[in-house]
Amino acid sequence: MTGVVVSPRRANVVGTGLIGGSVGLALRAHGWHVTGADADHSCAAQALALGAVDAVGTDPDAELTFVAVPVGAAPELVRAALDGGGVVTDVGSVKAPVVAAVDAPRFVGGHPMAGSEALGVDGARADLFDGATWVLTPTATTDPDAQALVHSVVRSFGAEVVTLDPEAHDRLVATVSHVPHLTAATLMELAAGRAEEHAALLQLAAGGFRDMTRIAAGDPGIWLDICADNRDAILDVLDGLLASLTDMRDVVADGRRDELLARLRSAQAARRSLPDGVPPADELAEVRVRIPDQPGELAAATTLASELSVNVYDIEVAHSAGGGRGNLILVVDARRAEDLSNALAARGRTASVHPLA
Amino acid sequence: MTGVVVSPRRANVVGTGLIGGSVGLALRAHGWHVTGADADHSCAAQALALGAVDAVGTDPDAELTFVAVPVGAAPELVRAALDGGGVVTDVGSVKAPVVAAVDAPRFVGGHPMAGSEALGVDGARADLFDGATWVLTPTATTDPDAQALVHSVVRSFGAEVVTLDPEAHDRLVATVSHVPHLTAATLMELAAGRAEEHAALLQLAAGGFRDMTRIAAGDPGIWLDICADNRDAILDVLDGLLASLTDMRDVVADGRRDELLARLRSAQAARRSLPDGVPPADELAEVRVRIPDQPGELAAATTLASELSVNVYDIEVAHSAGGGRGNLILVVDARRAEDLSNALAARGRTASVHPLA
Repeated sequence: MTGVVVSPRRANVVGTGLIGGSVGLALRAHGWHVTGADADHSCAAQALALGAVDAVGTDPDAELTFVAVPVGAAPELVRAALDGGGVVTDVGSVKAPVVAAVDAPRFVGGHPMAGSEALGVDGARADLFDGATWVLTPTATTDPDAQALVHSVVRSFGAEVVTLDPEAHDRLVATVSHVPHLTAATLMELAAGRAEEHAALLQLAAGGFRDMTRIAAGDPGIWLDICADNRDAILDVLDGLLASLTDMRDVVADGRRDELLARLRSAQAARRSLPDGVPPADELAEVRVRIPDQPGELAAATTLASELSVNVYDIEVAHSAGGGRGNLILVVDARRAEDLSNALAARGRTASVHPLA
Repeated sequence: MTGVVVSPRRANVVGTGLIGGSVGLALRAHGWHVTGADADHSCAAQALALGAVDAVGTDPDAELTFVAVPVGAAPELVRAALDGGGVVTDVGSVKAPVVAAVDAPRFVGGHPMAGSEALGVDGARADLFDGATWVLTPTATTDPDAQALVHSVVRSFGAEVVTLDPEAHDRLVATVSHVPHLTAATLMELAAGRAEEHAALLQLAAGGFRDMTRIAAGDPGIWLDICADNRDAILDVLDGLLASLTDMRDVVADGRRDELLARLRSAQAARRSLPDGVPPADELAEVRVRIPDQPGELAAATTLASELSVNVYDIEVAHSAGGGRGNLILVVDARRAEDLSNALAARGRTASVHPLA
């Protein structure tokens, strides 16, 4: 197994809530020394007491800093973290604004698609990211070594990495996260209003309703920034949902049974084909790419892999001695390696597939 | 513990799918002899092979028949089952049409609020109803002994019984089941459409989205009858949802943070206060009611109990020797017994509370 080896490893976690605390626990489980800070000092102290960090404060020698704060506060704290010499990543649910605001080679935007209704460091778990999808949003200015470092650390938590450009990320999470959250809250409000008319309603709320509204039990506070920062994408998806629900209403009103059946069948088929986590590769292969040794080249290759649904398990960046050119090694499912290699070749890169050494 | 004792016990199950098969398994676990029929003979044979029924066919001596077929087919099969001398109940998700179509003293409408994405008798389980809410919808013409029988049998499956009039039931399930289902299907459709533009979308569908759309994986077929039979209530709730989602859209578009926070907080509070099943009573008490010995009296008392959120654990109907008057005994949470007794008294009944013998 090739891999980026970094040692000794020291990290900072800025913001020690549920996600930051879980990052701290996961890092420490892999032998990192973790220093944590939080605007709420009692929260940082609690993270220390729970073993999510080794020390409270900021480690000037950290090679990696996770900024785990609400999206509105992220740009300022990411910039502050970049004053140290290390790589910085964040965990916010909206990526285009922070990536545009920071635009530094050592910053890699990130978004772990994991969470829970639990609030605060109390709910933190070392295995929170195991099997979860973790999106990275490197850009044309991102240093390949910085991206490879974040990729390998996140992979060590058990997460699958999907690389997207920030705008694509924001459109996609509006569909699978932000609008579903607002819809769950609205359904819950509607039911609560009717429960005032008839107390038995809540006793009738069985498994399906509980499943649908579970996310509405989460922290309302984080949604204010999300709705502000991802406003346009959310409005676009909400408009699509309103149009589609209005159609559904008319189908029911008109008793168009065939159309109703077709729509429910297509939704059923789509739900049943949702990937249940990413199927593990039977066998891995290396895709080697010769690239100009410059920012953005790794970002372009990994983003292309995600567009093709090719999972990147590991990354190695080999710089040429004289500079100017380098080699990327992407470790992927052997069955998909040729697809990725061909797509890279179609974009003018010299790529080749090799059995895993 | 007082209770209705019926012995020997023979039952029919008409329709041996997921619900009918689970009813058969639960009945057999309590010593009943169960005979099952299904329009699809192979389905009945499979129920026999799986031990959900003792025999295939119709038992003319059954004291109780569960009709577990899609709502559109229920009235005809309920009427056929009433040709035997026993009590008949059904399990359909919409109650007003079948109750209006049948209107017989020995028929008690029912709706177990349990299910799963599983289809058919393969998914049947003896404990499917344990802890679930099971709605009964007796009316002014319902024989109290018939209602008490169904109540006690359903209670023996571990279900909590909520008694509602059929129209109230249909309005409430439109809110907590039918419209949430249509909404889940619509969200899933929307995501599937966008997944065609970007394959990574489905990898981003984390726990919250999976929870919200899980019910869309269920059998589409049953929803055609439900949407036809409960059309008006569904349209009413869908219109409410569309109005409320449109408001939510405008709140996001205008950046009204305080209002957004207030709405999400109220949804959060409502979701967190959803009863997690019915809290078991610490101590039970009997509410004894003198009633005219006639249909509908028990229905009125138990419906009143459900309106007050008073759970009825057991029912006994004692007929006077000369006829004309009788006594009902409702076993309820001792802490709520006075509330129910007072409410019955306010409706002109002679009611009293007694420690459980």
